[in-house]
Amino acid sequence: MPDLSPMAKVKALAFDVFGTVVDWRGSITAEAAQIGAAHQVEADWATFADAWRDGYAPAMDKVRKGELPWMNIDSLHRLILDSILPAFGLADLDEAQREHLNHAWHRLQPWADSVEGLSRLKRCYTITTLSNGNFSLLTNMAKHAGLPWDCVISAELFGHYKPDPQAYHGTAKLLGIDISELMLVAAHPSDLRAARALGCRTAYVIRPLEFGLGHPPYEVAEGEFDLVAETFNDLAAQLDL
Amino acid sequence: MPDLSPMAKVKALAFDVFGTVVDWRGSITAEAAQIGAAHQVEADWATFADAWRDGYAPAMDKVRKGELPWMNIDSLHRLILDSILPAFGLADLDEAQREHLNHAWHRLQPWADSVEGLSRLKRCYTITTLSNGNFSLLTNMAKHAGLPWDCVISAELFGHYKPDPQAYHGTAKLLGIDISELMLVAAHPSDLRAARALGCRTAYVIRPLEFGLGHPPYEVAEGEFDLVAETFNDLAAQLDL
Repeated sequence: MPDLSPMAKVKALAFDVFGTVVDWRGSITAEAAQIGAAHQVEADWATFADAWRDGYAPAMDKVRKGELPWMNIDSLHRLILDSILPAFGLADLDEAQREHLNHAWHRLQPWADSVEGLSRLKRCYTITTLSNGNFSLLTNMAKHAGLPWDCVISAELFGHYKPDPQAYHGTAKLLGIDISELMLVAAHPSDLRAARALGCRTAYVIRPLEFGLGHPPYEVAEGEFDLVAETFNDLAAQLDL
Repeated sequence: MPDLSPMAKVKALAFDVFGTVVDWRGSITAEAAQIGAAHQVEADWATFADAWRDGYAPAMDKVRKGELPWMNIDSLHRLILDSILPAFGLADLDEAQREHLNHAWHRLQPWADSVEGLSRLKRCYTITTLSNGNFSLLTNMAKHAGLPWDCVISAELFGHYKPDPQAYHGTAKLLGIDISELMLVAAHPSDLRAARALGCRTAYVIRPLEFGLGHPPYEVAEGEFDLVAETFNDLAAQLDL
């Protein structure tokens, strides 16, 4: 049994978004397949989604290390997109088509339990994003997918991408709470570990299909996080909602 | 007739909050009266609300001019509160009582048309706050009053209070739009004029009871703002919603 006493102090839940709330891989695969069909190009569009996402962490790390100036995720996505389009037969996409495809990240679909679970959690907690996605991406995504956030918080507001401490500390400060009153909800242990080291509470939500079927699960130590949940509804139930 | 063609470009509506969306004077008067009753103190609590609000613009201007370091509105409200409590017979309030009263600004009540009007406007536009109130104040207020913002934007995010240009430009940038695609909705001509000078569209919503009965209306030139509305529902109707 987790020690629930620190749980009673939690006032706000901050959610990682890509993979935790929305299915980026399924959504990008579907949008790319549509564009492929329109251009009579055949390719493995799930591999295209993976290639796009694979460029994300290295590009962000370059920003974190100062090798690139601050760029938001839209700009990083676009850099990566331009670099992978030729390999998938889409070198001919014009500027408007590239921008439209780049904005597929503003239109990602939620996991089946996300909207219902968030709505339950919202009854008793302030619920916010805490994502490296830029503010407009997160705002547009929420509108498109019906995600009922109380507010939108992006690493962009702090000029520091997760797992830089500024992102977690900045979120607690904006919400007017102590970091021990903030719980990070994420499908990625690395994110949760960074938050935990700063004094955040942590909820690990397992998303076995984030990278498609057959992807090995993350290794997580017993009791490493305050809560481990299968879905947002399961998380709500564990929080007695 | 206003020229409606620039209206067609508008993608987001940014709302001033104190006085435009919520009735700060009525709400603060009611909370102060409750505390007065609990402490068996009689006073004119509307005058108390006015005195509290009167300290606001001068305090903010000191921050804008660098005479005070950056302080959020909670901190400015608290400075003013501490200075006026003795004159209203409440010098004895302890720290917890002062903090509770200071947070009355997080619990302001919306005008009767606000929630319905915002819900209508949200169907076709991104709706956000653009307030000098701090981020947590605006987030808590939205949760308390049921204000259906797509996102919360505060001058605190930019370290510049309205009418500094950074607040309006920063809002457009966060939303990923041009400033000409942003409409400021406010009950205060000074705010609207600052936004208009930067290229924002403007909607003046008249709130004749913001300062109580008998307060003279603002002087506004014919055609000075793109739209003039009596309520948010009226604004929605003028925008064909």
